[in-house]
Amino acid sequence: MRCNSCGREVESQPCPHCGAYNVLDKGFVRLVEFLGGDRAVVQAARVSVGQGLKTPEKDRRLINYLMKHEHGTPFEHAVFKFHVKAPIFVAREWFRHRIASYNEISQRYVEVGDEFYVPDRLRKPSKGNKQASEFADFPDEGEILSKIEEAYRYVYTLYREMLERGVARELARIVLPLGIYTQFYWTVNARSLMNFLRLREASDAQWEIRQYAKVILRIFREKMPWTAEAWEKLGRKRP
Amino acid sequence: MRCNSCGREVESQPCPHCGAYNVLDKGFVRLVEFLGGDRAVVQAARVSVGQGLKTPEKDRRLINYLMKHEHGTPFEHAVFKFHVKAPIFVAREWFRHRIASYNEISQRYVEVGDEFYVPDRLRKPSKGNKQASEFADFPDEGEILSKIEEAYRYVYTLYREMLERGVARELARIVLPLGIYTQFYWTVNARSLMNFLRLREASDAQWEIRQYAKVILRIFREKMPWTAEAWEKLGRKRP
Amino acid sequence: MRCNSCGREVESQPCPHCGAYNVLDKGFVRLVEFLGGDRAVVQAARVSVGQGLKTPEKDRRLINYLMKHEHGTPFEHAVFKFHVKAPIFVAREWFRHRIASYNEISQRYVEVGDEFYVPDRLRKPSKGNKQASEFADFPDEGEILSKIEEAYRYVYTLYREMLERGVARELARIVLPLGIYTQFYWTVNARSLMNFLRLREASDAQWEIRQYAKVILRIFREKMPWTAEAWEKLGRKRP
Amino acid sequence: MRCNSCGREVESQPCPHCGAYNVLDKGFVRLVEFLGGDRAVVQAARVSVGQGLKTPEKDRRLINYLMKHEHGTPFEHAVFKFHVKAPIFVAREWFRHRIASYNEISQRYVEVGDEFYVPDRLRKPSKGNKQASEFADFPDEGEILSKIEEAYRYVYTLYREMLERGVARELARIVLPLGIYTQFYWTVNARSLMNFLRLREASDAQWEIRQYAKVILRIFREKMPWTAEAWEKLGRKRP
Repeated sequence: MRCNSCGREVESQPCPHCGAYNVLDKGFVRLVEFLGGDRAVVQAARVSVGQGLKTPEKDRRLINYLMKHEHGTPFEHAVFKFHVKAPIFVAREWFRHRIASYNEISQRYVEVGDEFYVPDRLRKPSKGNKQASEFADFPDEGEILSKIEEAYRYVYTLYREMLERGVARELARIVLPLGIYTQFYWTVNARSLMNFLRLREASDAQWEIRQYAKVILRIFREKMPWTAEAWEKLGRKRP
Repeated sequence: MRCNSCGREVESQPCPHCGAYNVLDKGFVRLVEFLGGDRAVVQAARVSVGQGLKTPEKDRRLINYLMKHEHGTPFEHAVFKFHVKAPIFVAREWFRHRIASYNEISQRYVEVGDEFYVPDRLRKPSKGNKQASEFADFPDEGEILSKIEEAYRYVYTLYREMLERGVARELARIVLPLGIYTQFYWTVNARSLMNFLRLREASDAQWEIRQYAKVILRIFREKMPWTAEAWEKLGRKRP
Repeated sequence: MRCNSCGREVESQPCPHCGAYNVLDKGFVRLVEFLGGDRAVVQAARVSVGQGLKTPEKDRRLINYLMKHEHGTPFEHAVFKFHVKAPIFVAREWFRHRIASYNEISQRYVEVGDEFYVPDRLRKPSKGNKQASEFADFPDEGEILSKIEEAYRYVYTLYREMLERGVARELARIVLPLGIYTQFYWTVNARSLMNFLRLREASDAQWEIRQYAKVILRIFREKMPWTAEAWEKLGRKRP
Repeated sequence: MRCNSCGREVESQPCPHCGAYNVLDKGFVRLVEFLGGDRAVVQAARVSVGQGLKTPEKDRRLINYLMKHEHGTPFEHAVFKFHVKAPIFVAREWFRHRIASYNEISQRYVEVGDEFYVPDRLRKPSKGNKQASEFADFPDEGEILSKIEEAYRYVYTLYREMLERGVARELARIVLPLGIYTQFYWTVNARSLMNFLRLREASDAQWEIRQYAKVILRIFREKMPWTAEAWEKLGRKRP
């Protein structure tokens, strides 16, 4: 398999060269930098009682306590910076999370490449939840997927033609589809990240953003194992 | 002319029936509610010196003083709520402004209507500024605009076809273009609104969002004449 | 009883002249302005499904649904502006709530008046909760309360003496106690206000800030009865 | 001299043992962790044009460009975490900066130590600026400073007495002065930090918080030399 970030042939995830995880057909999530960690949460929480780190057992118990009682501020002292490549309809949901920092590739400035999200399989509306969806057998799945690709090619050809005729990028882009890929840096603290996960890794989140959230959860678990464990037990689903 | 919000025939802007201003070919901006005003700014600022409102002349001078010295917090006590209809590529720039509240129509839930932004005229890249654009004479303008409309129809037909074949809305939407219209509520305080205007009403902003910003500036002037005047003189362009 | 805000003799709360509620011995909470309301929440929520207001019954049910599933953004479109007078140790807890706007009287600029919080009764530490407290019988309560007042007078006399000898206000204030009263404007949306109430109206909040939270809850109930009811049932205590 | 953070005898600043800088008579600022740096700013900014790092010269020029045109978001991807000890009247100004994370020692929970800020010299009101102050010769300076210390001792003795008689900490603290020291963790991105510096390192800021801001500026210069240089030239004072 090929790494969607650095383009090298890889056998497993994350990419041993650049650290990225592939997501969807052409996207990725890559942790760029990280500050803090479980013990930073403990330190920040203990300053309030005039104390510092204790035994791992006690520190872990404290994290559970904070999670259970929704004492969120200590979790703000751990910070993740990600590089993400995702389709625009995914990025639009992502950018609704306001307590975070974003820098995105500018379609006004850059000529957009022809990278579009083509699903592997189609989904039909969920029975239980009007806005959700579930995988289903479509007799004509192959045909529909081909039509999606064809539409992508069609509008991309028009986009390129407009550029060649001298139309400004910022204007020519209006025909580009929501399935086109974009890239951005995302810096977010653990408190806001847990809120992202609660909403976007949930079963009623759109399947595509959920794939991103799953990778972020995996990275979260690696970097902050105690916090991630406490969150999965106590924060993910409020009972 | 027809009001893009309520659909009634009107002779002038804003619409005498619903209060909306038309923007672009199918969009609008409508002030839904407003809290505060120039005097609310003055009141909030004067609490810090243990005083209240004074003469209009003095109050106005205070607003100029606050603006000049970038004392931003008193302006946060005036709040606007707008209803906006805009193409997605405009909404995407808009939603980057994090100090504000948004609720947007959900394309996961709702079947999207066939309303797309078709420019009146085309623009070429600016000479001075790579990411900006300017109006220009395109010998084949009519042809290009027709092709844009054709592309819109093409992908919208595919979108509708997918829905009919049972594809979930949240998935079928991936072929929809960035030029499709969306709607949202936007609640924002005057400080954040002035920041929006500084960036989006500027000459290097994309022409389309600038049309929205111009209307918002007009409403701002009506509701907070002293603050708007001070902003145009002292806050719009930092020298 | 005398209104702590306008100083007039009143028989009931809120003050029929200025609208303030007395809190503690010299403090108050006064709603200055309000934007939105239950129906504004419903409108903002329904934009996402392309609809507007329906029957009161349905609208009310929607608010319950939003509350239960923690869909917070629609509640951001209702905004309260309060004028508050509270002791500094209360204000310090208050200002930790970052999603809100504040303007406070400046002790650097203004000569501070001799208004201090003197409790009616003393409290001892709670048995269950180290940081909380409960009312108790203190045999020497009167004596301790007198000593508190004496200490207030002592440091205030020194403060005044320093000012008279030419010491700058911003420096002379360092001897003033945390029990001294301050005033501020607070503009906050309903979502952030509910978070404030969840933390500050709770049984483990400090008794003094809880008195303020109780009044704010009362005003919240008046202005947004459906939302307040839903919050008390579903948002106040996460089960 | 003794380090105000770890208590060891040191000859220079920052403390070679714990890294803290002394501020005022008993306070300190200590950088705990840092994420990003000048090149992280460049990376985040260049993602928008689909590029990465270039030569140091070009990267540096980009930072100047961003600063000059107030493109703030790339600076959000560098994050500082500080441990601070400061008097409460300083902390109160500090906590007004909302785009940051705080965890502070809890006076409700912890018995407060007898550490108070005693200035070296007194200041009188500034002639030009009512709320500012300047150093001056006070014939009776020594006497006034003694009275401040005496007042501190007086109220602290009462505080201790109340605790001994069984009064809850959260209540007993109401007599403690604004000059008492507190401690907190502060996590802040470089954009918000520059805003802090613009306001708190300015000549009209209170002298005491300015001493903290000076140390933070020093650390900022060490960790992000290009950004700090650009800020001092272009961001500190808007012309």
